[in-house]
Amino acid sequence: MSLRNIRLVMEYDGSAYHGWQSQPHGKTIQDTLEGCLRKLTGEPIRVIASGRTDAGVHAEGQVVNFPTTTSLSPQTLLRGCNSLLPRDIVIREASEVPLSFHARFSAKSKTYRYQLLNRPIPSVFYRRFAWFVPYPLQLPPMQEALAGLKGTHDFSSFCAASSRARAFTRTLLRAELLPLGDLLAVYVQANGFLQYMVRAIVGTLVEVGAGKRPGEEVAALLARRDRTLAGPTAPAHGLILESVEY
Amino acid sequence: MSLRNIRLVMEYDGSAYHGWQSQPHGKTIQDTLEGCLRKLTGEPIRVIASGRTDAGVHAEGQVVNFPTTTSLSPQTLLRGCNSLLPRDIVIREASEVPLSFHARFSAKSKTYRYQLLNRPIPSVFYRRFAWFVPYPLQLPPMQEALAGLKGTHDFSSFCAASSRARAFTRTLLRAELLPLGDLLAVYVQANGFLQYMVRAIVGTLVEVGAGKRPGEEVAALLARRDRTLAGPTAPAHGLILESVEY
Repeated sequence: MSLRNIRLVMEYDGSAYHGWQSQPHGKTIQDTLEGCLRKLTGEPIRVIASGRTDAGVHAEGQVVNFPTTTSLSPQTLLRGCNSLLPRDIVIREASEVPLSFHARFSAKSKTYRYQLLNRPIPSVFYRRFAWFVPYPLQLPPMQEALAGLKGTHDFSSFCAASSRARAFTRTLLRAELLPLGDLLAVYVQANGFLQYMVRAIVGTLVEVGAGKRPGEEVAALLARRDRTLAGPTAPAHGLILESVEY
Repeated sequence: MSLRNIRLVMEYDGSAYHGWQSQPHGKTIQDTLEGCLRKLTGEPIRVIASGRTDAGVHAEGQVVNFPTTTSLSPQTLLRGCNSLLPRDIVIREASEVPLSFHARFSAKSKTYRYQLLNRPIPSVFYRRFAWFVPYPLQLPPMQEALAGLKGTHDFSSFCAASSRARAFTRTLLRAELLPLGDLLAVYVQANGFLQYMVRAIVGTLVEVGAGKRPGEEVAALLARRDRTLAGPTAPAHGLILESVEY
């Protein structure tokens, strides 16, 4: 009965959930996963995630870990979870890791992808996974704006007004817009994210692409440290936690 | 009040529907579209499609036409439909065409795409639009099998046993498997399709890819004209009517 530490990599469609984090009312991804792990192990498992995702946000590579004394192998846990979980949550990988591994504190950075569908007519196939923007967007100023956000800055201007964070400095390692036909993918990798940060960046970017503000203004917004100056928060359903880097 | 003929190109996610064709019980795509067109035009519109799609099958380019005396422009009909239709049906194009245009009889060929997800772990993002095959598939014999189906043949071996068709000869203009990472797309273009034909071909192909039957056997199956010899019918949710050629 020695203590082991299990690490899972998860994919989920957040459409039907009230976000990652366990809460008294409404179905969450954490509660759903923990319910399965309890059934499989007989233990009151509590998992630690790399970070919470908000209601409606998806993941391709959310990372969690949990301590357990179960003798079930990682492969058995993976198969067991995938047969018990609803079809909108999938365990992609399971492995045993040193007890020192902590999904949140050990993370060096996270990468989010935000998907925009930019064409006049909506798509039935992307309706859950991309923000539909029917008016034309100019990519070069959006790319210029993203480049201006790279590096270490105070990101107060791109943080939820309601955030209880006390430190607003983060380092953006990657900020890139890649078009694939009419699907635009915005990649943002950072050592940490403030609440709604990616969605506030994307909401501002779309204003830049639509010609409502110049691309170079975005870097200047950082210096103002005022959330009311940035664009609106882009909807949750375009956002995907792509990977967590350790 | 002169009679006009309107042509629509439609996209739909068939997951929630009992197929294309109007029926007394259960929601269908035809009924849903006709309901919107009646609201917009005030006329009891009946539409003609290039062909029915079965329950659970999707479309990216279903083509329909309908006669009407409405004075609404095609653009107004497109916008009106897209604001009234549920989010799993979208009108991509609307245009006025000669009265002689008939979505079914004028069609020269149709192209279907069947999507397979071939990896050990399912995907939450493709779960509605691809058949999940967890065991490894060998592509070259599948491609060989598809090549053997091209041309004009009696396709009885790949037709629903319950079909009431009396002529089974069809010409396959394209039969191709294109991998995109772990997503395999099977493209089949023909001058006409028998019931379940694409899905019977794909069910057989997957047996070839899994090594259960040799690729060259598939062409021989055609000569036998016996549905019981081919593989199982692949599930509906991987099938997409990609386009109709006129």
